[in-house]
Amino acid sequence: MDETALIGVDWGTTNARAFRYDAQGTVVETRHRGCGLLQIVDGDWETTFLKNFGDWTNGAPDLPVLLCGMVGSQQGWSEAPYVECPLDISTLAENLHPITGTDYCIVPGVRTIDGCGVPDVMRGEETQLAGLDPQGLQLVCLPGTHSKWVQIAGESVTGFQTYMTGELFKLLSEHSILARTQTKGPSSHEAFLLGVDHSKRDGGLLHQLFGVRGLRLFDQLTGDAQGDYLSGLLIGHEIRSALDATSAAGMVTVVGAKELTSRYVTAMEYMGRSIIVTDGEQAASRGLWRIAQQAGMIA
Amino acid sequence: MDETALIGVDWGTTNARAFRYDAQGTVVETRHRGCGLLQIVDGDWETTFLKNFGDWTNGAPDLPVLLCGMVGSQQGWSEAPYVECPLDISTLAENLHPITGTDYCIVPGVRTIDGCGVPDVMRGEETQLAGLDPQGLQLVCLPGTHSKWVQIAGESVTGFQTYMTGELFKLLSEHSILARTQTKGPSSHEAFLLGVDHSKRDGGLLHQLFGVRGLRLFDQLTGDAQGDYLSGLLIGHEIRSALDATSAAGMVTVVGAKELTSRYVTAMEYMGRSIIVTDGEQAASRGLWRIAQQAGMIA
Repeated sequence: MDETALIGVDWGTTNARAFRYDAQGTVVETRHRGCGLLQIVDGDWETTFLKNFGDWTNGAPDLPVLLCGMVGSQQGWSEAPYVECPLDISTLAENLHPITGTDYCIVPGVRTIDGCGVPDVMRGEETQLAGLDPQGLQLVCLPGTHSKWVQIAGESVTGFQTYMTGELFKLLSEHSILARTQTKGPSSHEAFLLGVDHSKRDGGLLHQLFGVRGLRLFDQLTGDAQGDYLSGLLIGHEIRSALDATSAAGMVTVVGAKELTSRYVTAMEYMGRSIIVTDGEQAASRGLWRIAQQAGMIA
Repeated sequence: MDETALIGVDWGTTNARAFRYDAQGTVVETRHRGCGLLQIVDGDWETTFLKNFGDWTNGAPDLPVLLCGMVGSQQGWSEAPYVECPLDISTLAENLHPITGTDYCIVPGVRTIDGCGVPDVMRGEETQLAGLDPQGLQLVCLPGTHSKWVQIAGESVTGFQTYMTGELFKLLSEHSILARTQTKGPSSHEAFLLGVDHSKRDGGLLHQLFGVRGLRLFDQLTGDAQGDYLSGLLIGHEIRSALDATSAAGMVTVVGAKELTSRYVTAMEYMGRSIIVTDGEQAASRGLWRIAQQAGMIA
């Protein structure tokens, strides 16, 4: 086994992605495990950690370990208080949360409060942001169950907003009146783009959603294409709302796994917007390394 | 038993509301039954009709019977083709759909197609519209699982839009991340109004929905108040979208049962809009009578 300089884990609601780094910060081993927050039995995070990644620390109990994501939430291993937005990305390293009884640390989540006094939060995405090349960064989109849109100025996060896009797609596909006529077949690019286009229709989202039913009722959409249309409608809404809410006119950086980012790229290209795509896992692994370095955790 | 001149049934997805009229058009008996489309076994509508309302026709098998609602849908007793919008309300009576093998008729549903080619439909609401006083009618709101907003000019329905508001409230309250922290307690007027107010926030509905989570996470909303806030947010969205999409500046007529219309009235008053409220069941019973008269079904 190569010499290990750091173990980093992006530990979310459903999954954990763990990275073992050498002294140069190169990831020499990656593990994906389905042991997310929802799967932890009796809150026993330590046992879960040791079972899945313990062999990496064998013989080197003082090896630095840095965690990020829902592991630091109220229901996590140990609650890491939020740092407030706006913030310099570098301040994450100054606010690491040590887990009592271990030498491990958790990257804090970030909280923002909008003009109406409504809070918004992220846990895990701040570490991905720390892993991005800050050069020219303005507006970052992190698609997912709860997508994040982040405004960046220089080295600072100036604001962010969460969108329930992925969760709403799942809800509507599984439990609504639309679920009855939605079938799973080959995906339709045309139906997706039609949905993106129709997200500009009058009447807002609540009305446009019923349009899925209308199109299906008169066979203007097949059962197989219905899900793609719905996906286009919801993603189109998210992008339009997010772009409307910001004055950032430059490039949008989309961070995530390919199956998801590709839909966002297609939709934004359709709207005539320029995009850069970055792999989400790479951003997380780089972010964990950089934060550990800034915090002086690495010899 | 008083002499019966007409039996009318507003027969929907979950319920049937039946009216027995005398020769003057007065409703002398009303029955509510839980035998909606979803409860009909093996498509046997006739047996269901006879079991629930058959005693009204005993001794007078030629009594006119007029039905409206989902009973005329593809999954209904017999499919009544849609009439196209715009239409004069009086044309409903010219397009009644006779059920083969019976003397019964079904009021047709109405279909509209918007500028993007997306169809929208109603079944049952057209009959409630026929039961309203046409004097000064401009914009009609019929709240529900799938709320309808209808534009009226003189005696014509010029357009309408469906909103999935009620269904989305149920989905989010039962199956989403919000369901985990929503409890059922005394309802909060303040939380409802806060939701209505926050429906104007930047970022659109997909973002605002996550705000429910944000407010709850920092105890700015109790578990009991969460459902009222969510209800205010969704109803606020529906109303704002519907009012934005129309140039009708006058009175809004809200048609429905009191528990539901009262929320719409509160929200619209909060937005400074004038409203008239009409009972939905009365509108349905009057509509069935008027259409039967216009169609010459009553001696």
